[in-house]
Amino acid sequence: MTIAAKSRISAPVLLRPLIAEALGTGLLVATVVGSGVMAQNLAPGQVLLQLLCNALATVAVLGLLIALFASVSGAHFNPAVTLAAAVTGACRWPTAAGYLVAQFVGGCLGTVLAHAMFGQTLVQWTGQTRGGAGQLLGEVVATAGLLLVITLLVRDRRAHLVPVAVPAWIFAGYFFTSSTSFANPAVTVGRALTGSFAGIAPASVPAFVLAQLAGAAVGVGVAHLVRGWSTESQ
Amino acid sequence: MTIAAKSRISAPVLLRPLIAEALGTGLLVATVVGSGVMAQNLAPGQVLLQLLCNALATVAVLGLLIALFASVSGAHFNPAVTLAAAVTGACRWPTAAGYLVAQFVGGCLGTVLAHAMFGQTLVQWTGQTRGGAGQLLGEVVATAGLLLVITLLVRDRRAHLVPVAVPAWIFAGYFFTSSTSFANPAVTVGRALTGSFAGIAPASVPAFVLAQLAGAAVGVGVAHLVRGWSTESQ
Amino acid sequence: MTIAAKSRISAPVLLRPLIAEALGTGLLVATVVGSGVMAQNLAPGQVLLQLLCNALATVAVLGLLIALFASVSGAHFNPAVTLAAAVTGACRWPTAAGYLVAQFVGGCLGTVLAHAMFGQTLVQWTGQTRGGAGQLLGEVVATAGLLLVITLLVRDRRAHLVPVAVPAWIFAGYFFTSSTSFANPAVTVGRALTGSFAGIAPASVPAFVLAQLAGAAVGVGVAHLVRGWSTESQ
Amino acid sequence: MTIAAKSRISAPVLLRPLIAEALGTGLLVATVVGSGVMAQNLAPGQVLLQLLCNALATVAVLGLLIALFASVSGAHFNPAVTLAAAVTGACRWPTAAGYLVAQFVGGCLGTVLAHAMFGQTLVQWTGQTRGGAGQLLGEVVATAGLLLVITLLVRDRRAHLVPVAVPAWIFAGYFFTSSTSFANPAVTVGRALTGSFAGIAPASVPAFVLAQLAGAAVGVGVAHLVRGWSTESQ
Repeated sequence: MTIAAKSRISAPVLLRPLIAEALGTGLLVATVVGSGVMAQNLAPGQVLLQLLCNALATVAVLGLLIALFASVSGAHFNPAVTLAAAVTGACRWPTAAGYLVAQFVGGCLGTVLAHAMFGQTLVQWTGQTRGGAGQLLGEVVATAGLLLVITLLVRDRRAHLVPVAVPAWIFAGYFFTSSTSFANPAVTVGRALTGSFAGIAPASVPAFVLAQLAGAAVGVGVAHLVRGWSTESQ
Repeated sequence: MTIAAKSRISAPVLLRPLIAEALGTGLLVATVVGSGVMAQNLAPGQVLLQLLCNALATVAVLGLLIALFASVSGAHFNPAVTLAAAVTGACRWPTAAGYLVAQFVGGCLGTVLAHAMFGQTLVQWTGQTRGGAGQLLGEVVATAGLLLVITLLVRDRRAHLVPVAVPAWIFAGYFFTSSTSFANPAVTVGRALTGSFAGIAPASVPAFVLAQLAGAAVGVGVAHLVRGWSTESQ
Repeated sequence: MTIAAKSRISAPVLLRPLIAEALGTGLLVATVVGSGVMAQNLAPGQVLLQLLCNALATVAVLGLLIALFASVSGAHFNPAVTLAAAVTGACRWPTAAGYLVAQFVGGCLGTVLAHAMFGQTLVQWTGQTRGGAGQLLGEVVATAGLLLVITLLVRDRRAHLVPVAVPAWIFAGYFFTSSTSFANPAVTVGRALTGSFAGIAPASVPAFVLAQLAGAAVGVGVAHLVRGWSTESQ
Repeated sequence: MTIAAKSRISAPVLLRPLIAEALGTGLLVATVVGSGVMAQNLAPGQVLLQLLCNALATVAVLGLLIALFASVSGAHFNPAVTLAAAVTGACRWPTAAGYLVAQFVGGCLGTVLAHAMFGQTLVQWTGQTRGGAGQLLGEVVATAGLLLVITLLVRDRRAHLVPVAVPAWIFAGYFFTSSTSFANPAVTVGRALTGSFAGIAPASVPAFVLAQLAGAAVGVGVAHLVRGWSTESQ
């Protein structure tokens, strides 16, 4: 008789998607923040090389987390994705509400974990100011592209490509959007708690989140413009 | 009743391939130009590191766009590919004409979008002069390889590998061809509108485009030399 | 009649998994140490760039070795993975004991091979001191994530994704954990024999190994929390 | 009636494998040499960053070429692979002889093409001296690993993984072997014709090639040690 058969500490089935969303968002933010701290420590002043390592680490973990938790919770890890799913009827509103809470809690704990690993103050409110018309347009483009990718792949019954396609978009967005593609309100809030390379000033958060939500709407709209509403093909 | 069921703003079916070609070419050029600006801003003077980030961002988005739009328009995003398809009978000429317009319009709008995100003048005519026998040979090699890859994969009924194979070729071409592998007339014209890292002087465009068209012909020819005309196996 | 048919020097079938574990762990450590020496030689002082090349080389070989030897030995290459398999009943204890010996022997020989290729003293006891609460937490997180990934994929009958998923986690861990994710007692001991970039002081090894074993337990526990014990679904 | 149906200039079927071997080896060497020149031009003195770009471009094109030409010629592009195939009976000796000629001719033309694209003297005899016990051991390890990977995958009927597995090995070898993993006599001879970053002094070639052939034998031997001769399972 194995230990596995002897002890059973599994979470109730209904809680598992929420644990997956919190854990996934938390590890994603821990990677963004932690790799930012590492990059700053090892190559002070070399911002492009820092951004490259930050982006590569982020998308490696992002693709992995999506592949790992897609069958548990859908692997949203992103309030913009959850809201789009709720608005378009792909996800019930009570479920969406639980996901949002899990994502924001997970995102904040991710930053705390990263700080703990690097021996820093657990919560910092000293992130850099970000914003302006250009960067907000960047967030609109980044989040629109993200929702375009997800919507088209799901509509074409190719959701198995999401763990590769979403990281590809986010990686490119790190470099070609002026805002380095936050594209995620929970990650944005989590990054508001760090003063390191990846941080954002709390005062800059609301405009970023609004731009992300606008971008999500644009992305869903463009997907339907290109491929038609899914109800047409039924 | 969901919002999706209530509103229907899809484009007429015949327009969708043109939207896909314009959107795909536009996002491709926005990535090339935007990541060039980002790289220049963050690591002035470090040209090889800039080129690495520029190349990685470009091929990430290129593979994603091909996977996303292949079933809508064939995901050409490139007049050299469209012309080769028309010449070899794989695409009707009226369709090809529409694609070409969509690609050039999309390519130019991509540069405008990148400039808008980075708060720069929307259209710039100050790209660097490129050319000379070596770089033109580079464009011939880059575009020949591109058409060789596409032609062989399509002929072998392995078109599902194109979203990986084409970015692999373009990534290598960024480094091993002296011209950094533009390999695309619509991208070349789009890049003629920026004075940044990725720009090309308008006066350098015609020779580049001619070299690309010559390369496309070479690539299709070599593919048939290696594998025979597809009609042989029918 | 071919040479293959004439000579037969294959190892007895029972020895093959042990050879695979020793060879795999050895090549993994040789890559970690060798690429660390190369990086230090070619870019002294540029630690982030060194870490990037070290991480990329490591995960390329790690994914390859897992794909290559999974059908021979399960491709553990890691005492933490072997112990978790033994504790949860997935691997018999006598087999596990043999694996552990093979992994530690292979890991040490990997460092010796790397030193021989670079013309250095074969065994060095001068690795840098590593430790402290932050780095030990880093090892807990790194090894917990590793076991979480493996346990969930095996439980979902998606073990074919392990050769991609494990390198993705380790790559991210190189940057976002403060300890650069050793996450492997045999690799840690192997790296205690080198004074180069990748080295660890012998005195730092015990705490690292304990943190790794604690992390492994955490990872298996979290996997069961998220997905339930596998016995539930039977 | 399309142009494709009107003109037929395909090579005789028997010549196609030779064209594929020459073209593949040529493009591989052109990528190694061309990306080396580009890297040197754009980041003089930054040797690790040069090596990273050189390695990434090389493995991108290597994987692509293997996927493209595997069904035409087996995609050897490497006399060590061809000789191992002939010795183990997987390839007839007359075919092997033709392949060797095609590979060496293609490799040399690849260097000439790279030089032409960068406006350099087409043939240069000024490559850097390479050798010594450490680097020769590096070549043994690099080529042994290459043959180990190919032999095990072919034996397990997983040859479809070769286009990913071989580039993964070569990429790691660029960094963890002291010789940067030439691992290919035809590529070594091609690189003897360039004085750039990727060059090797002609006097250093014979020892490198001997080490590669020894490594190939070691690799085939280890594969059989781990997995048994394929005749056992028949």
